[in-house]
Amino acid sequence: MTGTLYGLGVGPGDPELLTLKALRLLRACPVVAYPAPDTGQSFARSIASGYLSAEQTEYPIVVPMRIERFPAQDIYDVAARDLSRVLQDGQDVAVLCEGDPFFYGSFMYLYERLAGRFPCEIVPGVSSVMAGAAALGRPLAARNDVLTVIPGPLPDSEISDRLAAADAVAIIKIGRHFKRIRTLLEREGLTGSAGYLERISLAQERILPLAEAEGSAPYFSMILVYKGAENWITNLPVESSQIAANVSERAS
Amino acid sequence: MTGTLYGLGVGPGDPELLTLKALRLLRACPVVAYPAPDTGQSFARSIASGYLSAEQTEYPIVVPMRIERFPAQDIYDVAARDLSRVLQDGQDVAVLCEGDPFFYGSFMYLYERLAGRFPCEIVPGVSSVMAGAAALGRPLAARNDVLTVIPGPLPDSEISDRLAAADAVAIIKIGRHFKRIRTLLEREGLTGSAGYLERISLAQERILPLAEAEGSAPYFSMILVYKGAENWITNLPVESSQIAANVSERAS
Repeated sequence: MTGTLYGLGVGPGDPELLTLKALRLLRACPVVAYPAPDTGQSFARSIASGYLSAEQTEYPIVVPMRIERFPAQDIYDVAARDLSRVLQDGQDVAVLCEGDPFFYGSFMYLYERLAGRFPCEIVPGVSSVMAGAAALGRPLAARNDVLTVIPGPLPDSEISDRLAAADAVAIIKIGRHFKRIRTLLEREGLTGSAGYLERISLAQERILPLAEAEGSAPYFSMILVYKGAENWITNLPVESSQIAANVSERAS
Repeated sequence: MTGTLYGLGVGPGDPELLTLKALRLLRACPVVAYPAPDTGQSFARSIASGYLSAEQTEYPIVVPMRIERFPAQDIYDVAARDLSRVLQDGQDVAVLCEGDPFFYGSFMYLYERLAGRFPCEIVPGVSSVMAGAAALGRPLAARNDVLTVIPGPLPDSEISDRLAAADAVAIIKIGRHFKRIRTLLEREGLTGSAGYLERISLAQERILPLAEAEGSAPYFSMILVYKGAENWITNLPVESSQIAANVSERAS
Protein backbone atom coordinates (compact mmCIF):
# COMPACT_ATOMS: atom_id res chain seq x y z
CA MET A 1 0.00 0.00 0.00
CA THR A 2 1.63 3.21 -1.18
CA GLY A 3 0.55 6.62 0.06
CA THR A 4 -1.45 9.15 -1.94
CA LEU A 5 -0.11 12.46 -3.23
CA TYR A 6 -2.60 15.27 -2.58
CA GLY A 7 -2.29 18.60 -4.38
CA LEU A 8 -4.24 20.93 -2.13
CA GLY A 9 -5.33 24.36 -3.34
CA VAL A 10 -5.08 26.68 -0.33
CA GLY A 11 -6.54 29.73 -2.09
CA PRO A 12 -5.26 33.27 -2.63
CA GLY A 13 -4.12 34.08 0.91
CA ASP A 14 -6.94 34.29 3.44
CA PRO A 15 -6.80 31.04 5.44
CA GLU A 16 -10.60 31.07 5.52
CA LEU A 17 -10.62 30.60 1.73
CA LEU A 18 -9.44 27.02 2.04
CA THR A 19 -12.11 24.52 1.11
CA LEU A 20 -13.51 22.09 3.67
CA LYS A 21 -11.98 19.25 1.65
CA ALA A 22 -8.50 20.80 1.55
CA LEU A 23 -8.62 21.34 5.33
CA ARG A 24 -9.73 17.76 6.02
CA LEU A 25 -6.98 16.26 3.85
CA LEU A 26 -4.35 18.69 5.11
CA ARG A 27 -5.06 17.60 8.70
CA ALA A 28 -5.05 13.91 7.73
CA CYS A 29 -1.66 13.86 5.98
CA PRO A 30 1.41 13.02 8.10
CA VAL A 31 3.70 14.80 5.63
CA VAL A 32 3.12 18.33 4.33
CA ALA A 33 5.22 19.75 1.50
CA TYR A 34 5.19 23.30 0.14
CA PRO A 35 7.26 25.62 -2.06
CA ALA A 36 9.51 27.96 -0.09
CA PRO A 37 11.91 30.77 -1.06
CA ASP A 38 15.58 30.48 -0.07
CA THR A 39 15.08 33.51 2.20
CA GLY A 40 11.88 34.33 4.08
CA GLN A 41 8.56 32.60 4.60
CA SER A 42 6.74 30.16 2.37
CA PHE A 43 3.55 31.88 1.22
CA ALA A 44 1.68 28.58 0.84
CA ARG A 45 2.70 27.52 4.35
CA SER A 46 1.75 30.89 5.83
CA ILE A 47 -1.77 30.45 4.46
CA ALA A 48 -2.17 27.01 6.05
CA SER A 49 0.04 27.48 9.13
CA GLY A 50 -2.92 27.73 11.52
CA TYR A 51 -4.07 24.27 10.46
CA LEU A 52 -0.74 22.45 10.83
CA SER A 53 0.09 20.34 13.86
CA ALA A 54 3.41 19.55 15.53
CA GLU A 55 2.90 15.86 14.67
CA GLN A 56 3.16 16.57 10.97
CA THR A 57 6.46 16.38 9.12
CA GLU A 58 7.07 19.45 6.96
CA TYR A 59 9.01 19.28 3.71
CA PRO A 60 9.84 22.70 2.21
CA ILE A 61 10.71 22.63 -1.49
CA VAL A 62 13.20 25.47 -1.61
CA VAL A 63 13.05 27.37 -4.89
CA PRO A 64 15.43 30.36 -5.00
CA MET A 65 13.38 33.49 -5.77
CA ARG A 66 15.67 34.60 -8.58
CA ILE A 67 14.78 31.49 -10.59
CA GLU A 68 11.15 31.26 -9.48
CA ARG A 69 9.93 32.10 -12.96
CA PHE A 70 12.26 29.55 -14.55
CA PRO A 71 12.30 26.75 -11.98
CA ALA A 72 15.39 24.58 -11.98
CA GLN A 73 14.04 21.16 -12.80
CA ASP A 74 16.65 19.42 -10.63
CA ILE A 75 14.98 20.95 -7.56
CA TYR A 76 11.83 19.02 -8.41
CA ASP A 77 13.82 15.88 -9.28
CA VAL A 78 15.19 15.89 -5.73
CA ALA A 79 11.81 16.70 -4.13
CA ALA A 80 10.08 13.98 -6.18
CA ARG A 81 12.73 11.46 -5.13
CA ASP A 82 12.38 12.36 -1.43
CA LEU A 83 8.58 12.39 -1.50
CA SER A 84 8.41 9.15 -3.49
CA ARG A 85 10.22 7.45 -0.61
CA VAL A 86 7.55 8.74 1.80
CA LEU A 87 4.76 7.60 -0.53
CA GLN A 88 6.49 4.24 -1.00
CA ASP A 89 6.42 3.84 2.80
CA GLY A 90 2.64 4.18 2.61
CA GLN A 91 2.41 7.70 4.01
CA ASP A 92 0.11 10.28 2.39
CA VAL A 93 1.68 13.57 1.33
CA ALA A 94 -0.16 16.91 1.13
CA VAL A 95 1.41 19.51 -1.15
CA LEU A 96 0.21 23.03 -0.36
CA CYS A 97 -0.49 25.03 -3.52
CA GLU A 98 -1.18 28.78 -3.58
CA GLY A 99 -4.54 29.41 -5.26
CA ASP A 100 -5.43 26.38 -7.38
CA PRO A 101 -2.91 23.55 -7.94
CA PHE A 102 -3.46 23.39 -11.71
CA PHE A 103 -3.76 27.12 -12.40
CA TYR A 104 -0.17 28.26 -13.16
CA GLY A 105 1.09 26.43 -10.09
CA SER A 106 4.48 24.87 -9.48
CA PHE A 107 2.74 21.72 -8.22
CA MET A 108 2.67 20.43 -11.79
CA TYR A 109 6.44 19.90 -11.63
CA LEU A 110 5.97 17.40 -8.82
CA TYR A 111 2.82 16.00 -10.38
CA GLU A 112 4.46 15.22 -13.71
CA ARG A 113 7.17 13.29 -11.86
CA LEU A 114 4.93 11.35 -9.45
CA ALA A 115 1.50 11.04 -11.07
CA GLY A 116 2.40 7.97 -13.07
CA ARG A 117 3.75 6.09 -10.05
CA PHE A 118 1.47 6.94 -7.11
CA PRO A 119 -2.23 7.64 -6.59
CA CYS A 120 -2.80 11.39 -6.84
CA GLU A 121 -5.73 13.57 -5.98
CA ILE A 122 -6.02 17.26 -6.83
CA VAL A 123 -8.25 19.42 -4.64
CA PRO A 124 -9.10 22.56 -6.61
CA GLY A 125 -8.82 25.88 -4.83
CA VAL A 126 -10.00 29.48 -5.11
CA SER A 127 -7.76 31.18 -7.67
CA SER A 128 -6.40 34.70 -7.23
CA VAL A 129 -8.26 35.74 -10.38
CA MET A 130 -11.68 34.99 -8.88
CA ALA A 131 -10.60 36.46 -5.53
CA GLY A 132 -9.39 39.56 -7.36
CA ALA A 133 -12.74 40.17 -9.04
CA ALA A 134 -14.47 39.66 -5.68
CA ALA A 135 -12.11 42.13 -3.99
CA LEU A 136 -12.64 44.68 -6.77
CA GLY A 137 -16.40 44.20 -6.51
CA ARG A 138 -16.75 43.65 -10.24
CA PRO A 139 -17.77 40.48 -12.09
CA LEU A 140 -14.87 38.89 -13.94
CA ALA A 141 -16.89 37.60 -16.87
CA ALA A 142 -20.58 37.39 -17.70
CA ARG A 143 -22.98 36.12 -20.33
CA ASN A 144 -20.91 35.27 -23.43
CA ASP A 145 -17.78 37.22 -22.51
CA VAL A 146 -14.51 35.60 -23.49
CA LEU A 147 -12.15 35.66 -20.53
CA THR A 148 -8.43 35.64 -21.22
CA VAL A 149 -5.73 35.13 -18.62
CA ILE A 150 -2.43 36.59 -19.81
CA PRO A 151 0.89 36.05 -18.01
CA GLY A 152 2.70 39.38 -17.63
CA PRO A 153 6.10 38.05 -18.76
CA LEU A 154 4.82 37.66 -22.35
CA PRO A 155 6.14 40.24 -24.89
CA ASP A 156 4.16 43.44 -25.54
CA SER A 157 3.08 42.42 -29.05
CA GLU A 158 1.55 39.19 -27.77
CA ILE A 159 -0.20 40.88 -24.84
CA SER A 160 -1.62 43.52 -27.20
CA ASP A 161 -2.97 40.86 -29.56
CA ARG A 162 -4.65 38.98 -26.71
CA LEU A 163 -6.09 42.21 -25.29
CA ALA A 164 -7.58 43.09 -28.66
CA ALA A 165 -9.35 39.72 -28.91
CA ALA A 166 -10.71 39.52 -25.35
CA ASP A 167 -13.73 40.90 -23.50
CA ALA A 168 -12.47 40.40 -19.95
CA VAL A 169 -8.76 40.15 -19.20
CA ALA A 170 -6.69 39.17 -16.19
CA ILE A 171 -2.98 39.91 -16.50
CA ILE A 172 -1.17 37.86 -13.88
CA LYS A 173 2.42 37.51 -12.65
CA ILE A 174 2.87 41.27 -13.05
CA GLY A 175 5.85 41.71 -10.71
CA ARG A 176 8.85 43.26 -12.45
CA HIS A 177 6.79 43.72 -15.64
CA PHE A 178 4.50 46.30 -14.02
CA LYS A 179 5.82 49.49 -15.65
CA ARG A 180 5.98 47.90 -19.11
CA ILE A 181 2.43 46.54 -18.89
CA ARG A 182 1.08 49.78 -17.46
CA THR A 183 2.60 51.67 -20.41
CA LEU A 184 1.16 49.10 -22.81
CA LEU A 185 -2.37 49.47 -21.35
CA GLU A 186 -2.06 53.25 -21.47
CA ARG A 187 -1.13 53.01 -25.16
CA GLU A 188 -4.20 50.81 -25.73
CA GLY A 189 -6.41 53.35 -23.96
CA LEU A 190 -7.36 50.84 -21.28
CA THR A 191 -5.93 52.46 -18.15
CA GLY A 192 -9.31 53.87 -17.13
CA SER A 193 -10.99 50.49 -17.14
CA ALA A 194 -8.26 48.58 -15.35
CA GLY A 195 -7.82 47.75 -11.68
CA TYR A 196 -4.51 46.90 -10.00
CA LEU A 197 -4.50 44.32 -7.19
CA GLU A 198 -1.85 42.88 -4.92
CA ARG A 199 -1.85 40.54 -1.89
CA ILE A 200 -5.51 39.80 -2.54
CA SER A 201 -7.54 38.70 0.51
CA LEU A 202 -4.64 39.39 2.89
CA ALA A 203 -4.47 42.15 5.54
CA GLN A 204 -1.94 43.97 3.33
CA GLU A 205 -4.27 43.78 0.30
CA ARG A 206 -3.86 46.77 -2.05
CA ILE A 207 -6.52 47.55 -4.66
CA LEU A 208 -6.24 50.62 -6.85
CA PRO A 209 -7.37 51.96 -10.18
CA LEU A 210 -4.42 51.25 -12.48
CA ALA A 211 -4.08 55.02 -13.01
CA GLU A 212 -3.22 55.40 -9.30
CA ALA A 213 -0.91 52.40 -8.98
CA GLU A 214 2.74 53.39 -8.88
CA GLY A 215 6.20 52.12 -8.06
CA SER A 216 6.95 48.43 -7.99
CA ALA A 217 4.64 45.43 -7.87
CA PRO A 218 5.14 42.11 -6.06
CA TYR A 219 5.21 38.86 -8.04
CA PHE A 220 1.71 38.01 -6.85
CA SER A 221 0.02 41.08 -8.30
CA MET A 222 -2.61 41.32 -11.00
CA ILE A 223 -4.33 43.74 -13.35
CA LEU A 224 -7.97 43.17 -14.29
CA VAL A 225 -9.09 44.89 -17.48
CA TYR A 226 -12.76 45.41 -18.30
CA LYS A 227 -13.23 46.35 -21.94
CA GLY A 228 -15.67 46.09 -24.81
CA ALA A 229 -19.22 47.29 -25.25
CA GLU A 230 -20.42 43.73 -24.79
CA ASN A 231 -18.80 43.61 -21.42
CA TRP A 232 -20.67 43.57 -18.11
CA ILE A 233 -19.21 46.87 -16.98
CA THR A 234 -21.74 48.78 -19.05
CA ASN A 235 -24.49 47.08 -17.07
CA LEU A 236 -23.35 48.10 -13.64
CA PRO A 237 -24.77 51.13 -11.85
CA VAL A 238 -21.25 52.51 -11.43
CA GLU A 239 -19.02 53.46 -14.36
CA SER A 240 -15.48 52.16 -14.69
CA SER A 241 -14.22 55.65 -13.83
CA GLN A 242 -15.75 55.07 -10.41
CA ILE A 243 -13.50 52.12 -9.56
CA ALA A 244 -11.53 54.83 -7.73
CA ALA A 245 -14.55 55.65 -5.54
CA ASN A 246 -15.17 51.99 -4.70
CA VAL A 247 -11.52 51.63 -3.88
CA SER A 248 -11.32 54.60 -1.52
CA GLU A 249 -14.44 53.30 0.26
CA ARG A 250 -12.69 49.96 0.71
CA ALA A 251 -9.56 51.68 1.93
CA SER A 252 -11.39 53.78 4.53
CA MET B 1 -28.34 49.53 10.30
CA THR B 2 -29.08 47.77 7.03
CA GLY B 3 -28.14 44.16 6.40
CA THR B 4 -25.27 42.99 4.18
CA LEU B 5 -25.68 41.15 0.89
CA TYR B 6 -23.28 38.20 0.64
CA GLY B 7 -22.55 36.54 -2.68
CA LEU B 8 -21.26 33.14 -1.64
CA GLY B 9 -19.44 30.90 -4.09
CA VAL B 10 -20.46 27.33 -3.24
CA GLY B 11 -18.14 25.66 -5.75
CA PRO B 12 -18.74 23.23 -8.62
CA GLY B 13 -20.96 20.69 -6.84
CA ASP B 14 -19.20 18.78 -4.07
CA PRO B 15 -20.42 20.32 -0.79
CA GLU B 16 -16.91 19.81 0.59
CA LEU B 17 -15.61 22.33 -1.96
CA LEU B 18 -17.23 25.22 -0.12
CA THR B 19 -14.69 27.49 1.55
CA LEU B 20 -14.59 27.86 5.32
CA LYS B 21 -15.62 31.48 4.88
CA ALA B 22 -18.62 30.68 2.70
CA LEU B 23 -19.79 28.10 5.24
CA ARG B 24 -19.41 30.51 8.17
CA LEU B 25 -21.37 33.26 6.45
CA LEU B 26 -23.98 30.88 5.07
CA ARG B 27 -24.71 29.65 8.61
CA ALA B 28 -24.79 33.22 9.97
CA CYS B 29 -27.32 34.63 7.51
CA PRO B 30 -31.03 34.48 8.47
CA VAL B 31 -32.08 34.69 4.82
CA VAL B 32 -30.68 32.46 2.05
CA ALA B 33 -31.47 33.14 -1.62
CA TYR B 34 -30.54 31.00 -4.62
CA PRO B 35 -31.42 30.57 -8.31
CA ALA B 36 -33.94 27.82 -8.96
CA PRO B 37 -35.50 26.35 -12.11
CA ASP B 38 -39.29 26.45 -12.52
CA THR B 39 -39.29 22.64 -12.36
CA GLY B 40 -36.91 20.53 -10.28
CA GLN B 41 -34.19 21.27 -7.75
CA SER B 42 -32.00 24.32 -7.38
CA PHE B 43 -28.42 23.20 -8.08
CA ALA B 44 -26.94 25.89 -5.84
CA ARG B 45 -29.25 24.90 -2.98
CA SER B 46 -28.49 21.20 -3.45
CA ILE B 47 -24.80 21.92 -2.97
CA ALA B 48 -25.39 23.79 0.31
CA SER B 49 -28.46 21.92 1.54
CA GLY B 50 -26.54 20.03 4.23
CA TYR B 51 -25.50 23.32 5.81
CA LEU B 52 -28.94 24.98 5.92
CA SER B 53 -31.00 25.09 9.09
CA ALA B 54 -34.78 25.17 9.61
CA GLU B 55 -34.42 28.61 11.24
CA GLN B 56 -33.26 30.16 7.97
CA THR B 57 -35.70 31.74 5.54
CA GLU B 58 -35.14 30.52 1.99
CA TYR B 59 -35.80 32.70 -1.05
CA PRO B 60 -35.65 30.86 -4.38
CA ILE B 61 -35.17 33.09 -7.41
CA VAL B 62 -37.12 31.14 -9.99
CA VAL B 63 -35.60 31.41 -13.46
CA PRO B 64 -37.42 29.31 -16.08
CA MET B 65 -34.88 26.96 -17.71
CA ARG B 66 -35.86 27.91 -21.25
CA ILE B 67 -34.65 31.47 -20.65
CA GLU B 68 -31.73 30.65 -18.39
CA ARG B 69 -29.27 31.80 -21.04
CA PHE B 70 -31.16 35.04 -21.61
CA PRO B 71 -32.48 35.86 -18.15
CA ALA B 72 -35.59 37.97 -18.00
CA GLN B 73 -34.45 41.09 -16.18
CA ASP B 74 -37.83 41.57 -14.49
CA ILE B 75 -37.19 38.39 -12.50
CA TYR B 76 -34.19 40.11 -10.92
CA ASP B 77 -36.08 43.37 -10.50
CA VAL B 78 -38.61 41.52 -8.34
CA ALA B 79 -35.94 39.58 -6.43
CA ALA B 80 -33.93 42.76 -5.80
CA ARG B 81 -37.05 44.52 -4.53
CA ASP B 82 -37.93 41.66 -2.16
CA LEU B 83 -34.36 41.24 -0.88
CA SER B 84 -33.87 45.00 -0.46
CA ARG B 85 -36.78 44.96 2.01
CA VAL B 86 -35.01 42.26 4.01
CA LEU B 87 -31.72 44.17 3.92
CA GLN B 88 -33.53 47.38 4.84
CA ASP B 89 -34.86 45.55 7.93
CA GLY B 90 -31.24 44.95 8.93
CA GLN B 91 -31.12 41.24 8.07
CA ASP B 92 -28.12 39.79 6.23
CA VAL B 93 -28.84 37.89 3.01
CA ALA B 94 -26.68 35.06 1.63
CA VAL B 95 -27.02 34.40 -2.09
CA LEU B 96 -25.78 30.93 -3.07
CA CYS B 97 -23.79 31.02 -6.30
CA GLU B 98 -22.69 27.90 -8.21
CA GLY B 99 -18.92 27.95 -8.65
CA ASP B 100 -17.68 31.52 -8.21
CA PRO B 101 -20.15 34.44 -7.92
CA PHE B 102 -18.33 36.64 -10.44
CA PHE B 103 -17.38 33.95 -12.97
CA TYR B 104 -20.32 33.85 -15.44
CA GLY B 105 -22.77 33.75 -12.55
CA SER B 106 -26.32 35.07 -12.43
CA PHE B 107 -25.51 36.74 -9.08
CA MET B 108 -24.32 39.79 -11.01
CA TYR B 109 -27.94 40.58 -11.92
CA LEU B 110 -28.79 40.98 -8.23
CA TYR B 111 -25.47 42.63 -7.50
CA GLU B 112 -25.90 45.34 -10.11
CA ARG B 113 -29.29 46.17 -8.60
CA LEU B 114 -28.29 46.15 -4.92
CA ALA B 115 -24.56 46.92 -4.74
CA GLY B 116 -25.05 50.67 -4.81
CA ARG B 117 -27.60 50.66 -1.98
CA PHE B 118 -26.42 48.05 0.54
CA PRO B 119 -23.09 46.76 1.84
CA CYS B 120 -22.05 43.76 -0.26
CA GLU B 121 -19.37 41.14 0.18
CA ILE B 122 -18.37 38.59 -2.43
CA VAL B 123 -16.84 35.34 -1.23
CA PRO B 124 -14.99 33.78 -4.18
CA GLY B 125 -15.50 30.08 -4.83
CA VAL B 126 -13.89 27.18 -6.65
CA SER B 127 -14.88 27.49 -10.29
CA SER B 128 -15.89 24.52 -12.43
CA VAL B 129 -12.94 25.24 -14.73
CA MET B 130 -10.38 24.62 -11.97
CA ALA B 131 -12.38 21.65 -10.69
CA GLY B 132 -12.51 20.28 -14.24
CA ALA B 133 -8.74 20.35 -14.65
CA ALA B 134 -8.38 18.66 -11.24
CA ALA B 135 -10.88 15.97 -12.20
CA LEU B 136 -9.12 15.39 -15.52
CA GLY B 137 -5.79 15.21 -13.72
CA ARG B 138 -4.20 17.72 -16.07
CA PRO B 139 -2.96 21.25 -15.31
CA LEU B 140 -5.19 23.93 -16.82
CA ALA B 141 -2.41 26.39 -17.57
CA ALA B 142 1.27 26.61 -16.75
CA ARG B 143 4.29 28.86 -17.14
CA ASN B 144 3.36 31.55 -19.71
CA ASP B 145 0.36 29.79 -21.23
CA VAL B 146 -2.51 32.04 -22.22
CA LEU B 147 -5.74 30.58 -20.86
CA THR B 148 -8.95 31.43 -22.69
CA VAL B 149 -12.44 30.68 -21.41
CA ILE B 150 -14.92 30.53 -24.28
CA PRO B 151 -18.71 30.34 -23.82
CA GLY B 152 -20.13 27.62 -26.06
CA PRO B 153 -23.04 29.73 -27.34
CA LEU B 154 -20.62 31.91 -29.37
CA PRO B 155 -20.66 31.40 -33.16
CA ASP B 156 -18.22 28.93 -34.78
CA SER B 157 -16.09 31.61 -36.42
CA GLU B 158 -15.50 33.37 -33.11
CA ILE B 159 -14.73 30.14 -31.25
CA SER B 160 -12.27 29.14 -34.00
CA ASP B 161 -10.49 32.50 -33.79
CA ARG B 162 -10.15 32.22 -30.00
CA LEU B 163 -8.95 28.61 -30.25
CA ALA B 164 -6.27 29.63 -32.74
CA ALA B 165 -4.91 32.31 -30.40
CA ALA B 166 -4.93 30.31 -27.15
CA ASP B 167 -2.63 27.79 -25.47
CA ALA B 168 -5.11 26.35 -22.99
CA VAL B 169 -8.84 26.56 -23.60
CA ALA B 170 -11.94 25.89 -21.54
CA ILE B 171 -15.19 25.89 -23.50
CA ILE B 172 -18.04 26.29 -21.01
CA LYS B 173 -21.85 26.30 -21.19
CA ILE B 174 -21.69 23.50 -23.77
CA GLY B 175 -25.23 22.17 -23.34
CA ARG B 176 -27.21 22.23 -26.56
CA HIS B 177 -24.13 23.42 -28.47
CA PHE B 178 -22.28 20.13 -27.92
CA LYS B 179 -22.57 18.59 -31.40
CA ARG B 180 -21.67 21.86 -33.13
CA ILE B 181 -18.62 22.45 -30.95
CA ARG B 182 -17.49 18.83 -31.24
CA THR B 183 -17.65 19.13 -35.04
CA LEU B 184 -15.75 22.42 -34.87
CA LEU B 185 -12.95 20.90 -32.74
CA GLU B 186 -12.77 17.90 -35.08
CA ARG B 187 -12.35 20.28 -38.02
CA GLU B 188 -9.56 22.06 -36.12
CA GLY B 189 -7.84 18.72 -35.46
CA LEU B 190 -8.19 19.15 -31.70
CA THR B 191 -10.45 16.22 -30.78
CA GLY B 192 -7.50 14.12 -29.65
CA SER B 193 -6.33 16.69 -27.14
CA ALA B 194 -9.72 17.56 -25.68
CA GLY B 195 -11.51 16.21 -22.63
CA TYR B 196 -15.27 16.33 -22.07
CA LEU B 197 -16.56 16.86 -18.52
CA GLU B 198 -20.00 17.06 -16.95
CA ARG B 199 -21.34 17.24 -13.37
CA ILE B 200 -17.78 17.81 -12.14
CA SER B 201 -17.10 16.75 -8.53
CA LEU B 202 -20.56 15.17 -8.18
CA ALA B 203 -21.32 11.45 -7.83
CA GLN B 204 -22.69 11.50 -11.40
CA GLU B 205 -19.49 13.11 -12.71
CA ARG B 206 -18.69 12.04 -16.30
CA ILE B 207 -15.21 12.57 -17.74
CA LEU B 208 -14.36 11.32 -21.21
CA PRO B 209 -11.97 11.98 -24.05
CA LEU B 210 -13.99 14.19 -26.42
CA ALA B 211 -13.70 11.46 -29.05
CA GLU B 212 -15.75 9.15 -26.81
CA ALA B 213 -18.35 11.69 -25.69
CA GLU B 214 -21.66 11.23 -27.48
CA GLY B 215 -25.30 12.21 -27.38
CA SER B 216 -26.46 15.27 -25.50
CA ALA B 217 -24.68 17.39 -22.89
CA PRO B 218 -26.16 19.15 -19.84
CA TYR B 219 -25.90 22.92 -19.50
CA PHE B 220 -23.17 22.53 -16.89
CA SER B 221 -20.74 20.66 -19.12
CA MET B 222 -17.33 21.68 -20.33
CA ILE B 223 -14.62 20.84 -22.84
CA LEU B 224 -10.97 21.41 -21.92
CA VAL B 225 -8.61 21.67 -24.88
CA TYR B 226 -4.86 21.29 -24.52
CA LYS B 227 -3.04 22.52 -27.58
CA GLY B 228 0.22 24.02 -28.75
CA ALA B 229 3.82 22.88 -28.49
CA GLU B 230 4.37 25.42 -25.73
CA ASN B 231 1.63 23.81 -23.70
CA TRP B 232 2.17 21.79 -20.55
CA ILE B 233 0.79 18.60 -22.03
CA THR B 234 4.07 17.92 -23.79
CA ASN B 235 5.75 17.93 -20.38
CA LEU B 236 3.61 15.26 -18.77
CA PRO B 237 4.65 11.60 -18.64
CA VAL B 238 1.38 10.64 -20.34
CA GLU B 239 0.44 11.77 -23.85
CA SER B 240 -2.87 13.41 -24.63
CA SER B 241 -3.94 10.18 -26.35
CA GLN B 242 -3.80 8.60 -22.92
CA ILE B 243 -6.51 10.78 -21.43
CA ALA B 244 -8.67 7.78 -22.26
CA ALA B 245 -6.59 5.53 -20.01
CA ASN B 246 -6.73 8.00 -17.12
CA VAL B 247 -10.45 8.27 -17.60
CA SER B 248 -11.13 4.52 -17.58
CA GLU B 249 -9.02 4.24 -14.41
CA ARG B 250 -11.19 6.91 -12.82
CA ALA B 251 -14.33 5.15 -13.99
CA SER B 252 -13.32 1.76 -12.59
